[in-house]
Amino acid sequence: MGDRRCSNGVHREEAAQSDAQLFDRQFKELVMELTEQDFTDPVLADALGRLREVLLYNAPGGKRNRGLSVIGSLRELVPPSKLTPEEQQRALLVGWCIELLQAFFLVADDIMDASQTRRGQPCWYKREGIGLDAINDAFLLEGAIYRLLRRHCRGQPYYVNLLELFTETSFQTELGQALDLMTAPPHKIDLNRFTVERYKAIVKYKTAFYSFYLPVAAAMYMAGIKNEAEHKNAKTILLEMGEFFQIQDDYLDCYGDPAITGKIGTDIQDNKCSWLVVTALGVMNGEQRTELEACYGRSDAESVERVKALYDTLDMPVRYLQYEEESYQRLQKLIECHAQNLPHTVFLNFAKKIYKRNK
Amino acid sequence: MGDRRCSNGVHREEAAQSDAQLFDRQFKELVMELTEQDFTDPVLADALGRLREVLLYNAPGGKRNRGLSVIGSLRELVPPSKLTPEEQQRALLVGWCIELLQAFFLVADDIMDASQTRRGQPCWYKREGIGLDAINDAFLLEGAIYRLLRRHCRGQPYYVNLLELFTETSFQTELGQALDLMTAPPHKIDLNRFTVERYKAIVKYKTAFYSFYLPVAAAMYMAGIKNEAEHKNAKTILLEMGEFFQIQDDYLDCYGDPAITGKIGTDIQDNKCSWLVVTALGVMNGEQRTELEACYGRSDAESVERVKALYDTLDMPVRYLQYEEESYQRLQKLIECHAQNLPHTVFLNFAKKIYKRNK
Repeated sequence: MGDRRCSNGVHREEAAQSDAQLFDRQFKELVMELTEQDFTDPVLADALGRLREVLLYNAPGGKRNRGLSVIGSLRELVPPSKLTPEEQQRALLVGWCIELLQAFFLVADDIMDASQTRRGQPCWYKREGIGLDAINDAFLLEGAIYRLLRRHCRGQPYYVNLLELFTETSFQTELGQALDLMTAPPHKIDLNRFTVERYKAIVKYKTAFYSFYLPVAAAMYMAGIKNEAEHKNAKTILLEMGEFFQIQDDYLDCYGDPAITGKIGTDIQDNKCSWLVVTALGVMNGEQRTELEACYGRSDAESVERVKALYDTLDMPVRYLQYEEESYQRLQKLIECHAQNLPHTVFLNFAKKIYKRNK
Repeated sequence: MGDRRCSNGVHREEAAQSDAQLFDRQFKELVMELTEQDFTDPVLADALGRLREVLLYNAPGGKRNRGLSVIGSLRELVPPSKLTPEEQQRALLVGWCIELLQAFFLVADDIMDASQTRRGQPCWYKREGIGLDAINDAFLLEGAIYRLLRRHCRGQPYYVNLLELFTETSFQTELGQALDLMTAPPHKIDLNRFTVERYKAIVKYKTAFYSFYLPVAAAMYMAGIKNEAEHKNAKTILLEMGEFFQIQDDYLDCYGDPAITGKIGTDIQDNKCSWLVVTALGVMNGEQRTELEACYGRSDAESVERVKALYDTLDMPVRYLQYEEESYQRLQKLIECHAQNLPHTVFLNFAKKIYKRNK
């Protein structure tokens, strides 16, 4: 394992760079298809204009890791000689469908969480004249996924698999969001709901399925891999990565360098069910719990500092590094045991990007 | 045409009654499947409990005309001897999927319209402790559609057609809602946006596709009718019916008897782009327009009465009866021209239910 990565390292790097460029360029075309070609009824002009605005504001601007993972994974699963230009285009397109799914969730989550900014700009619903109409805009983003799949993948042997994969993953994410909302309702602070078990359930359903399993599973279907056992194996590995990714995200929210991460964390203020708080709750004494109860979920600087001091006292950075190392080892074992029929590089490339990152 | 209806009238009446009972009974089972069988991961228990509440509050309680139309149409398209009990069950199930689609839209529309009640009870988002979390609940209702289709229709030759039909219809409805929101934003009264053309576009996309074409199209696919031309013909007829249905609904909002309709209309107060207002605008003089501009979209009783007086002056009830008669004639012609290969009863049964109704 790993030898394929060494010999092809340079080529893969180049392919990834050019994939990213092609991916970005494809967006304009896709907006055009959705807003000018798919519906030609002139009475729809205003609605399609709205769709265009919604797409342009909400779909680009992210790290697009999820979207690019489809073509990246497909390149690991299919030899270059067998990957036609048309199929590469379709993989980029399916990648955009994942970005649209994410945009759909983010637009809606921002309303439910009463968030102010997203990706360095005001949340869509916060823009002048938008407000709760953003709910329907979120639906449009979701609807665009199935229009695009229909236009580009209809007739492919994996079309129905993609339809099922996207609808299934959406439902899992929505169940995760339901769990999250009932665990940490804004302004109702109840640390008793914060358990490691609940934390892991939220991460798995709300984030890991759509961010980690979905892009690789889509590439597997495109490569003709439909076998349930293989999907189950890939899922086991990718959900472990997804869990690690979120825990790292939670850690960086408090301990990351804003100059590098590009954002200032507010998980403490926002009463988030974060890995730091659920782990700290598991190891603190009664006195420390009283202190946490007095300070968590409050937005004044002093309360936030007192929570951070508590985290320091409880050695959270050390516990995190321990967790990271354990997760990495666990992952290597999972890959060895479960990825028997799949090239390990599919998973290792992913792992490379997320372990030991600092932003 | 019509002879089949005469000879089978009694049987059909009985079938419809028993379908309605079976339909209602199926709901409990479907909730059980969605919340107890489809997902067995114990960490999801709370989220599935929420899904259960959302389903029970929002899916039943309507007139369920849309849902029952699937089995009703299928009985017209397939001879009784060829309709297996399993296929009847599936038709009821697909009917529930339409009711779920409607519930998904209604939960969300009520938030966007700031509505207070729905089907004689508080809107879901208005319930204690729900609020904007209802957005995710709407997603769950939508997600349930694809879970049910997967469980019950996977493996059927029309499975992918139903997936496409539901995603496509959702997108059309969302485009219609976008049009509606930008035409009549609450609290921004601008009668210049109210044109007959815009009105018809909103009705077609926001209501007619999912209420009229969707149930019949689903039954057609289940009966093995996939031919595009036949679907196009059915669509032409059903969209005409859908337009009439909405116009009638708008008429009854103002002129219906609340003792019969069961609701007190508020279209005038709510600044709705109703058939009455767009038609009145087309025939009024400048003075009357000034009067309408002064009164439309206001909630005080006097303004409402002045709008109603204007409608009376403009003979709106007579214009409505005229429109109803014309639409009925147009429909008969459309059925004769476009339903060549489909039993006319599919459409006539529908028409019977909606023309000349008073509730």
